[in-house]
Order: sequence, then C-alpha cells, then structure tokens
Amino acid sequence: MASTSSLTLSQALLARAISHHATDQRRDSRLSLVSLPAFSGLKSTTPTASRATTTTNRRRRVSSLHVRAAAVETLDATAETSLVEKSVNTIRFLAIDAVEKANSGHPGLPMGCAPMGHILYDEVMRYNPKNPYWFNRDRFVLSAGHGCMLQYALLHLAGYDSVKEEDLKSFRQWGSRTPGHPENFETPGVEVTTGPLGQGIANAVGLALAEKHLAARFNKPDSEIVDHYTYAILGDGCQMEGISNEVCSLAAHWGLGKLIAFYDDNHISIDGDTEIAFTEDVDKRFEGLGWHVIWVKNGNTGYDEIRAAIKEAKAVKDKPTLIKVTTTIGYGSPNKANSYSVHGSALGAKEVDATRQNLGWPFEPFHVPEDVKQHWSRHIPAGAAFEAEWNTKFAEYEKKYSEEAAEFKSIMACELPTGWEKALPVSVTSTVVFALDLAMRTSLTYTPESPADATRNLSQQNLNALAKVLPGLLGGSADLASSNMTLLKMFGDFQKDTPEERNVRFGVREHGMGAICNGIALHSPGLIPYCATFFVFTDYMRAAIRISALSEAGVIYVMTHDSIGLGEDGPTHQPIEHLSSFRAMPNILMLRPADGNETAGAYKVAVLNRKRPSILALSRQKLPQLPGTSIEGVEKGGYIISDNSSGNKPDVILMGTGSELEIAAKAAEELRKEGKAVRVVSFVSWELFDEQSDAYKESVLPAAVTARVSIEAGSTFGWQKLVGSKGKAIGIDRFGASAPAGKIYKEFGITAEAVIAAAKEVS
Amino acid sequence: MASTSSLTLSQALLARAISHHATDQRRDSRLSLVSLPAFSGLKSTTPTASRATTTTNRRRRVSSLHVRAAAVETLDATAETSLVEKSVNTIRFLAIDAVEKANSGHPGLPMGCAPMGHILYDEVMRYNPKNPYWFNRDRFVLSAGHGCMLQYALLHLAGYDSVKEEDLKSFRQWGSRTPGHPENFETPGVEVTTGPLGQGIANAVGLALAEKHLAARFNKPDSEIVDHYTYAILGDGCQMEGISNEVCSLAAHWGLGKLIAFYDDNHISIDGDTEIAFTEDVDKRFEGLGWHVIWVKNGNTGYDEIRAAIKEAKAVKDKPTLIKVTTTIGYGSPNKANSYSVHGSALGAKEVDATRQNLGWPFEPFHVPEDVKQHWSRHIPAGAAFEAEWNTKFAEYEKKYSEEAAEFKSIMACELPTGWEKALPVSVTSTVVFALDLAMRTSLTYTPESPADATRNLSQQNLNALAKVLPGLLGGSADLASSNMTLLKMFGDFQKDTPEERNVRFGVREHGMGAICNGIALHSPGLIPYCATFFVFTDYMRAAIRISALSEAGVIYVMTHDSIGLGEDGPTHQPIEHLSSFRAMPNILMLRPADGNETAGAYKVAVLNRKRPSILALSRQKLPQLPGTSIEGVEKGGYIISDNSSGNKPDVILMGTGSELEIAAKAAEELRKEGKAVRVVSFVSWELFDEQSDAYKESVLPAAVTARVSIEAGSTFGWQKLVGSKGKAIGIDRFGASAPAGKIYKEFGITAEAVIAAAKEVS
Repeated sequence: MASTSSLTLSQALLARAISHHATDQRRDSRLSLVSLPAFSGLKSTTPTASRATTTTNRRRRVSSLHVRAAAVETLDATAETSLVEKSVNTIRFLAIDAVEKANSGHPGLPMGCAPMGHILYDEVMRYNPKNPYWFNRDRFVLSAGHGCMLQYALLHLAGYDSVKEEDLKSFRQWGSRTPGHPENFETPGVEVTTGPLGQGIANAVGLALAEKHLAARFNKPDSEIVDHYTYAILGDGCQMEGISNEVCSLAAHWGLGKLIAFYDDNHISIDGDTEIAFTEDVDKRFEGLGWHVIWVKNGNTGYDEIRAAIKEAKAVKDKPTLIKVTTTIGYGSPNKANSYSVHGSALGAKEVDATRQNLGWPFEPFHVPEDVKQHWSRHIPAGAAFEAEWNTKFAEYEKKYSEEAAEFKSIMACELPTGWEKALPVSVTSTVVFALDLAMRTSLTYTPESPADATRNLSQQNLNALAKVLPGLLGGSADLASSNMTLLKMFGDFQKDTPEERNVRFGVREHGMGAICNGIALHSPGLIPYCATFFVFTDYMRAAIRISALSEAGVIYVMTHDSIGLGEDGPTHQPIEHLSSFRAMPNILMLRPADGNETAGAYKVAVLNRKRPSILALSRQKLPQLPGTSIEGVEKGGYIISDNSSGNKPDVILMGTGSELEIAAKAAEELRKEGKAVRVVSFVSWELFDEQSDAYKESVLPAAVTARVSIEAGSTFGWQKLVGSKGKAIGIDRFGASAPAGKIYKEFGITAEAVIAAAKEVS
Repeated sequence: MASTSSLTLSQALLARAISHHATDQRRDSRLSLVSLPAFSGLKSTTPTASRATTTTNRRRRVSSLHVRAAAVETLDATAETSLVEKSVNTIRFLAIDAVEKANSGHPGLPMGCAPMGHILYDEVMRYNPKNPYWFNRDRFVLSAGHGCMLQYALLHLAGYDSVKEEDLKSFRQWGSRTPGHPENFETPGVEVTTGPLGQGIANAVGLALAEKHLAARFNKPDSEIVDHYTYAILGDGCQMEGISNEVCSLAAHWGLGKLIAFYDDNHISIDGDTEIAFTEDVDKRFEGLGWHVIWVKNGNTGYDEIRAAIKEAKAVKDKPTLIKVTTTIGYGSPNKANSYSVHGSALGAKEVDATRQNLGWPFEPFHVPEDVKQHWSRHIPAGAAFEAEWNTKFAEYEKKYSEEAAEFKSIMACELPTGWEKALPVSVTSTVVFALDLAMRTSLTYTPESPADATRNLSQQNLNALAKVLPGLLGGSADLASSNMTLLKMFGDFQKDTPEERNVRFGVREHGMGAICNGIALHSPGLIPYCATFFVFTDYMRAAIRISALSEAGVIYVMTHDSIGLGEDGPTHQPIEHLSSFRAMPNILMLRPADGNETAGAYKVAVLNRKRPSILALSRQKLPQLPGTSIEGVEKGGYIISDNSSGNKPDVILMGTGSELEIAAKAAEELRKEGKAVRVVSFVSWELFDEQSDAYKESVLPAAVTARVSIEAGSTFGWQKLVGSKGKAIGIDRFGASAPAGKIYKEFGITAEAVIAAAKEVS
C-alpha cells in the first residue's frame, strides 16, 4: 500500500479491496471474487451528463410512481405512501426473516427504525451501490450496531453486491458478509465497525470532521469536490455511554453542521424500560452541548415528519443536529413490540406469523415485492450518475488546480508520495533538520554523539517532518499536546472556523479521541490520524483502540510517559501492564523505540501499516542515542544492536525495549569487560519480530542459547516467550510509586546491576 | 479479614489499617507505625455528651473568635473574614511550598480552590481527624486529583496524623504519605484514589449511593445512624471525560440529594484556555441530567457566596447539586495566574516570591501562622465529639434493634458471618438448593452427573446464595442483567424511592459502573459490590478496574460471554486478549472457572479477597460438571483435576481454563486410551497459583516434565510461562468471527483433536 503512484486510482482502490480479502484467513473463497465495477475514477470514462440531466433521467425512470414535491431540498423523488409503507415493511421482514433463520440477532431496532432507514437510503442519501468506495458518498453509521439487519436490508434493496439474498440468508453464519454486527472489513457499504455502543456516533463525528477538513482544504469557490453528509442512528444504549457525550460535545464545538444523528428513542433497552436507569432529559443535554435538536414524535409512520426534520437539519449549517425519533421497538409485532423481548432474540415462528398477519404481509421469507424492487432499482443508475458527475467535476478541478488535486488524490487513495520516508529525521545534529534537503538525508543516522533526548521529543520531530510530506497526516492530543509533544508547528488548530488546519484539540476525552480517529482513518485511505495521551490512559480508550485493530484503521497512537520513568505523578499515571496488554491484542503493532533511529523506524512502520494501528510507547525522560540502532532494525521488530560473540553463540543474550535498552547495553559493556560474549537485542515490536523468517529469528535468538535476560520497566508477563524457561525477565510486577524517576528505577531494581546479576545466574 | 466476629469492631478496623501497611512492600517503615486512636467503637467509652452540649462546648472553645451567624444551617462557627483569608492563604502557600520543594506537582488548583476547600473542611464537613475511618464521617473526593496538595494541606490543618509537616515536605518523594495524586491506601483521610480524570466524581457517586442505601436499610425513625454528605471537587478535565456524564446521569436518576459537587470552573486545562476544546454549556447539560445547579461567580474571595450555595444545595433533598465555582487557577500568582503554566509545574523561586509579595505572605515555607493553627485546632476535639455522639447513638440503636445492628456492624467492619461460605451452592441436584440446610451442604459437591450449565448461570446461583448471608453484597449490570445473570431474586431494584434494595441498574455505562463500585467498596469495608457486563466490554471500564486493583477495592467483576463461545455476535463481542491483559495487571485476581465447583470456588476467593478485586470470566454456553474440580483447587489457582501417571512423571501435562478445561479432559481420555500417562491441570487463577509454595507448584508442574500443552479460547500470550519453551499453547491469536459457537471452535482449532495432536508432538 506504500507508494502506489504508478497505479491509477481505480487500480489502487480495487487493490485495496482485494488485498484485504486475499490476506484474511477467515473469509470464504466467494469473497475474494467480489468484483468492484471498474472504477471510473478520474478519467471520466462514464457519461458526463450534468447533474440536472441525470436527475431528470432518473425521475423519468420512476415516472410511473406518484411523484410528490420532495419534502427535503435534496430529496429524491419519493414514492406514494403505500409504496413507502411496503418498502418499510420489506425492510422489517427482511430483518425478521434473517434473524429467524439464524435464530439469533436483533429484530427490534430494524422494525422500529425501518421508516427512517427507508427515507435515508431511498430518498436522502447519495451513494453508488456499485462502488461503495466512491469518495463523495454520504456516510451512514449504524451506531446501534446490533440492529445491523436494518443496514443489510437497506444495502440489499439499494443494490449493493455485498448483500445479495444469499447473504441475508446466511446472516450471522461462518464466512458470511452479514456478520452479527456491522463490520466494514466484511461488508462493502458498511463504513465502520460498530456494536460496542457509542463507538459508531464517535466514528460518525470523525467522518464528519474529515469531510469538513477536506472540504476546507480542497474545495474552491467554483468547485466543491468534497461535499457529503454524515448520518448516524444511535439508540438509548449509545446515549448512555460516556463516549457519546464526549464526541457530541466536540461535534458541536467544531460546528459539524453536516452531521445528522437520529436518536432512536424507543424507551427500551435490554434490561427493560429505560425508566429504570435513564431518565435524563436528552434533548436538554444536547442543547447544552450545542446541538440543534428536533423531535419527531411519530417515528413509526410519520414519514413526512422525518422528512421535514431532515430538511430542517440540513438548513442548520453551523451545528450538528440530533433528530430524536420516537419509535416503537419491534413495531408490528402484536405481542412483543415495545418490550425488551424483541430487542435481541428471534421473534419465534408463531410471533413471526402474527406479525405477518398484523402488518398484512402475505409473502414468503426474504421476499422483496416486485414493485418495491422496481422502486429501489433506480439507485444503481442514479449512483453511477452521481459518481460520474463527480468525476467530471474532479477532472475539471484537476485541470485548474493540479497541485491540490495531486494532494487530494494522495488522500483519496493513499498514494504515499515517492520517497516520503526520506523525510524521517534520522539526525538531530542539525538545528535546521526540517529544512535539510531530503535527498541528502537518506544516509544519515543518529550517532551515539547526538544529544540525548526523550523519545516523545523525537516523536515530535518525526510528526513535524512527516506532516510536510504526508498530506493526510493530522491529529492531536487529549489535552496533553505540550506533554505528548504532538503539535504540528506549521499548522494551526482545527477549529470550527479554521477546519483546514491539522492540529486537533480533543480535550480530555481519550475514548472519544480514539474512536473519532477511527472515523477519520476510515473516511479516506490516505488520511493518517494520530492521537496522543499518556500511555496509561490507553485504559480509557481501549475499546476504541481494539476497534482500530479489528476494523483495520491505521491510527497512530502516540503514547508518551510510558513507564515509571515519568516519576512523581505516581502509580495512577505509571503504566505497568500496558505493553503486555497490547502485545496480546490481535492486528496491532506495539512499538517501544529506544532512541532517535528507533523512533524514526517506528514512524516508518506506523505510516506504512495503513491497515493495522500502531501504538508508540514513548519516554518522558531523556535517553541516549545508542550505537547499533536503526530504522531497518525496527522494521524487523527485534534485532541485534551489539554483539561480541562469534558463530551465533553468545554466552548470554540481553534484551530490552525503549528506555531499558540503554540499561541492557550498559550491562553488556560491563559483562564484556569480564570476558563474556554478550549479545544485546532490541525488541521494539514483538509483532514484527514474529513475522520474520525462522532463519532470521534463529540468527537473533539461537535456540541453543538459553541464557537470556530481558529488562523492561513493565510487567514481565509474556517475556517468557522470549527469555525461555531458563532465562530471566526483569520487570515490574506491582504498581508504581510516586517519587523521582531515578529513585523508582533503583528501588524497583530496574538497573544494569540487576541485569548483570541475572546474566551470571542464567549463564 | 474473613470471619472476624470474635474481634471487636475497633480491633477489626485497626487490624484492617495495619494489615494493609504490613503487607505492602513499598511503604517505608515509618508507615507501619501509624497509630490510630483506640477506636471508641460501640462501647461508648467516650463522653456521652449530647450533640447540643458538644456543640456548645466546641463553640466555647472558639469563643475568642468573632462568631458570625453561620450561613449554612449545619455550618460550624466561622472565623472572621481576615482569619478565613489567612487560613485560605495558608492552604495556598502550603501547596506552593510543597510543589516548589518537590519541584514537581500542580499548584494551580489548590491556589484557586483554597476558599472552597477551607469552607468545606473548616466550616461544613463533619469528620474526626484522629479516626479517619469513623463510619459516619462526611466523605470528600478530590476528583481533580492532581490538585492533591489542596487536600494534603486541609488534612494537615485539620489535624490528621497522616499529613504532618514532614509529610508535606516529602511531597512526591519515595515512601511518603503525600504521593503525586491522592491515594487512599497511602494516606488515611483520603477516601479514594484519584488522578485519572473523572474517576473521582464516579467514586463520589458510589459513596453517596452507599450512604443512601445504608440509610434506607438501617435508619429508624428514632435513630439515624447513617447520615453523611459526600462532597467532590471536579475540574474541567473531569467534566470532559465521558465517565463523569455517565455517573452524573445516574446520580440524578437515583436522587442522590446528599451528593454535592463543586465544579472548579477555571477555564484552563493543560493545553490552554478551555475555549479550544470545551465550549458546551455545562450548567444546561447538568440540568438536563437532572441536577440542581448553582453558580458561584466569585470563587476566589466570595466566601459567603460559597456558603450560601452549600446551604442551598443541602436544602435540595431529591437531587444532587452541582456548584459551579468560577475561580482563577493559580490565584495570587501575579504572572502565572489564569494560565496553563500554573497548572502542573512549580512556580519557580522568583514567582513564589512574587506571589508571597502579592498576597502579603511574609512567612517561611511551610509555615502555619499561630492563629490559623489555633483556629483549626478545634477540629480534633470536635471530631472526637462527633464520633462519641454517634457511638452513643449507635449503642442505643443496638439495644433496640439488635438484628439490624449486627448486620450493620458486619458492613461497617467487614465481619463476614461465621460459616458464610457454606452458603456457596456446590450442588444443583436439588431444585430447592437455596433452601437446603446450610450445615448439610458443606460436604456436597457438583458431580459429573449434575446437569451441564453455563457458568454465568452457576454464577447467579452463587450470587443469590451469597446475598442471603452477606449483608454487604449488592450490585448489578450495565443493562445486561438478564444476560449476565446477576439479578438477586429476593431483592428489588435500588432506585430513587427504593434505595434499600440491592439490584443496581447501571444502564449502558460500564466505565461509570466500575468506578461507582470502587466508591461503594471504599465506603465501608463490608460492602461487597459486584458489577457485570460482557467480558469484552471490560475494555470500556479498564481504567476503573485498574483503580480497583490499585486502591484495594474488592469489587467483584462478573464478566460473562467470555470467549468466542458467545457465537453469533461476532468479533466486536468476543474477547481474545482479555484474559492475558488482566493476568498482566497487578493486584487483581483473574478467575476463569470451568464448572459448578469452580464457580463456587471463584466466589469464595472473590469474597475473601476484600483488598483485591476479582474478575470472573464466565461462559455463555453450557459446560459439563467435570470430575475432579473443587473449591479447594480453585483456592490454589492451579491444580490437578485428573491424572493417571505415577511418581509425578506424567508423559504429558494438559492445561486448560474455563470452557476449555472440558476439552483438555476429553483429550486426556483419548490419550489415556492409547496408553499415555496424562495429567490434566486447571489453571483457574494464575495469580493464586503464583502464590503457592515451590513444592506445591512442582507437584503440579514438575520441572522435569516439559511435554505440556495448554488450551484456552483466547490469546496464547503469556502461556509460555506455563507450557515452557518445549510446550505448546493452543489458543486464538486473531480476532473472532460471527457464527454459531461450535462452528467457530472447530474452525479455529480449539478442539480435543488439536490438543491430542499437540500432545503427541511435544511428548
């Protein structure tokens, strides 16, 4: 995915879709056959019909329907109410039938939200079913992810190839594209991965942020190439989660006027009526947060109310809008509607029959009536026309604004600029490091003579260097910018009135920050969000970080103050188990660089891994530049930084990471003075080391050498894998302490002396 | 700590304080000498003066001061304003001087909040400095924990032995009782551990919940033995964190009228003016949440405004109150006040001098002027009188209501009833399991013939059995009670109007739930809160769980749906790395029981560990009752459930936990048929196994036997410690999948066949 400038955009996007499928071990063979339409891309090979013409054509196609005046400015022609109701019931029964067949799932939300779902996908949203990755599509996020059958039904009706009838029939089955919660990496057309409550609305804030940012950077008075809405549906559960309050506060602060969130106000959660735990005045809270709030009192059949609310929401440009839609969970089920029993279980054959009776639905399971099918069929040509129109617009834009267009394409398709990695600061000997000619710097490295520095500072040098060459890099900190060292000096703050800037101020909202970054990353492949706090506070945002890993969002987590080395703030602020806890997490890179070269290496790895998030654990305290470290070494995850043995047979292998690599190196020096053959290995990323060949691993950690000692200022949990049964892991298996850092290191025995003693013990 | 019924309450409480100190490895020797005053306890050895008399006496003692009409009903006599100002400046300079000496810390908040701090500790709160554990004390929580010098200064002035002058002088130093953030386990007088933002206000909600619950259960019309307020100070950072919104929504829902939170509205956070990230209308949000909101516009010198606000807050009985106090961070510092630079760094010698000049403070560092000392000195006799008065009241209560008093004492001092553990359900063969005579059941165990059941269901049997014998057991779920199986059937819901009940409905607020439980646990030693959600959502509450572990809050985390065994909900809901991530965390018990006996054992361990939280990972799916499991085995953490070898020399050792222990047992049967000597070990809690003697460990895992195979439906990370370099760990090092559970197990190779193959490979 690195430097794909020789590919066309369409190839790049297609490659992206396919490479994902090819590398995933679980997906069944059918999925690798997904054929995206040839991306008409920037070459304008598709009809260049103007928007007006397209619309007219489309209208003509549905002319047999009664066409009413659209309630919402940008609304598509709507069908007559009886057909709308039929479509809405189709959605309801597709959900009912799929859950029934799987005997597992959540029918209640789709049954209640089908009206707003229908209006969004059939009348409001602009998308291209045959290219789910079309850049300027409206984004939709089902924050209440358990209701995923709503979205699958809508994608199916809209003509997405990812949700065919057989996919609906294999809902929640092994290898299907219709898993139990929406997963962007399984189902093209699903933007983000939701289910864990509150994540989706946060992702939606990230998507809307990305739109506002890109629009401000790239739109021209004569050409708005970035112009889409972000819609979300959230339920009572999402509303209760703290993360949603965090991100909704930010959404208003940033003035994300094109974010429109539907709150499915159905008064039921798993434990029963929301009265038992949720009696706040949500409207008032959102007004306090700075949102525009609208209440649709009849979400079950009030189609015009819903339409009017969307129209009003779109008219409010400077605030996000919450449309509270009062619905009945499980609407239509005579015996289970409005109860928790319809939330998360199949209705059961008897109640399904009763519901068919009640809603007058004589059809077989999974049936889509012909007139409904016919009505929705217009979205395929309409979507193609939307994209074609946009492609034409972009082609014109590219002609006039070639520089901006190149940058934009880099963001849209993740074409990293050729040679970008040369920007990585591999020397701090010059004070004009950023001004150095890039070509000159490829061979420079930090030397042991370079000044000692905290890796958090070295991180800032990297971020600032990369921001110059990576147009999609943007991010910030959860109110610790000056501690995390994350400010991009050449940019201002992303704010309501300066959305073109790239320093994002998240406030003290770690969880929301992570999930917003997931939304940014998944908006466009070339957006590279980073976010920062103290490493220990990954605990606040772990749910979001896990979703980065699961949903293949290449967020860069800049986590400073990565050990007891932070000193006086004490145990509440000192990470202990955090390195281990992330090493155990799938599909994430846990990197703990030791100095300048390794920090640059960590950033190189992080930038290249666009489908795997990276966590950089960085020191508060100064660290020396070590002999033997290198970017190339970091790319291997574990590598030898010094060795005085021969024949791959050291007397002892010392291992360390980050700030303790220095200690391992010092201990080695002492042991060598005593005549020992000592190898020192940096284990900056266990995941990358795991991916190396057996031969390489043997060259670093020969099986025959069982005398091994590791040192890391964190839990020893997991180190047995590397030190083996006969080795010794030095670490901290208790909480930290409030005192100057040096004192804690000494009291906790994280010292060269301890390494030397252990080395003698094991060898 | 288990069954201490033979101890007096005072002994029990003292033992509690001391045993903590004795077992902590880090604390310096001085701390083990902390001498609590002999607890006058329930024997009424102290003066029996009525409250009125006491108050009169106390007033007399301060009669040299100008006594004004108290602005707040329950306010103590207040000093004249000049003396108040002197006291306030004393607080400011103690903070300034301590931070300066440490050259580390946060002077800004104490300088701005000194007025409200003074009024709270000097005029409003009821406490006994010489017995920080007096039951009926008002609770104070500094949610903005970085400002801890405010609290240390106040504890010092009030006469707490935990914060002497030398403690202030060793602020943030190794072994001191004045760490960088407030830590209840270091500093008597500090109720909870704060610093990670938002936790403190959540703890305060838990403290207030505990008060309301206990008051409802134990108070009589003629004797209110439970009657205290909970105060908190939170800052902008706490307000931004999602957790604070979660818990404040609940606080209003529950009508916690005796919770009074001060919001230090100083407009500054670390990154600068809050304008950059926090522009919501906090007052309106809190009104939306259902709080009473008061704004004190001049928090710097408006003493009467603060007093009036507290009076108003106390008059509102059915809602918690937020007092927004607008202050100037770093008030008094001529060049740094109202800027982020005063938030988290020492002022520097020059600015300290300038501040002394500016506030007219001619004194040496750490000086407390004599009149200020004199003024505060009344709190020692006053506190003793408060406690004595309460003891008298309680003695009378005990005479009238002996049964309630016994239960109350159990909660107050954590005297677990003798034989409580006999209530643990060790057999489900009888349908009237709870009605069985306790004495009869000690020798019963689950047998392989007992019906298979999910450990989440077995957990519910335990909870319900324990609720009958443990008066302090209460808790609930984050809107998953019917999935987590956590309802106590004999109790109703803890709600605003039924606070005596014990089922707490947390709503979908995992993070808040955990932190509220920390508050409950730390309110009274005998309160045993449990809380529940799906195991994967520990990610949402990890910061709170870590603080349980750090602050020695024995919360029981009931975490169901503990693996891919949950099936169709898919990877967002399937924990993978979670077992490893908690095994790496200090001072917490990660328990994964396999069946009925082990679930009972897990509860026994969890209840007994009152200073260490427990996480119980429980299955959604049914599991058989296995031969060889036992409560006693669980208490050892790892133990042999079956073995056909002799001489401690099995051919191979198979290990498993939870739902996979069955698979290990099946594989063993097959291997034994082939003539192998196979041992099966349950590793239900690694922490407990670690604590066993070397001899015991060798008896379970003989070093000579390197043929070892483990199986667990989770990350293999960490298992190398038990399987060794030559063993093999079978697990899941990728994310899960949405499909029926059996299918996923098979596809992921979590099968007996895989164990057999691995066993043959390694042996």
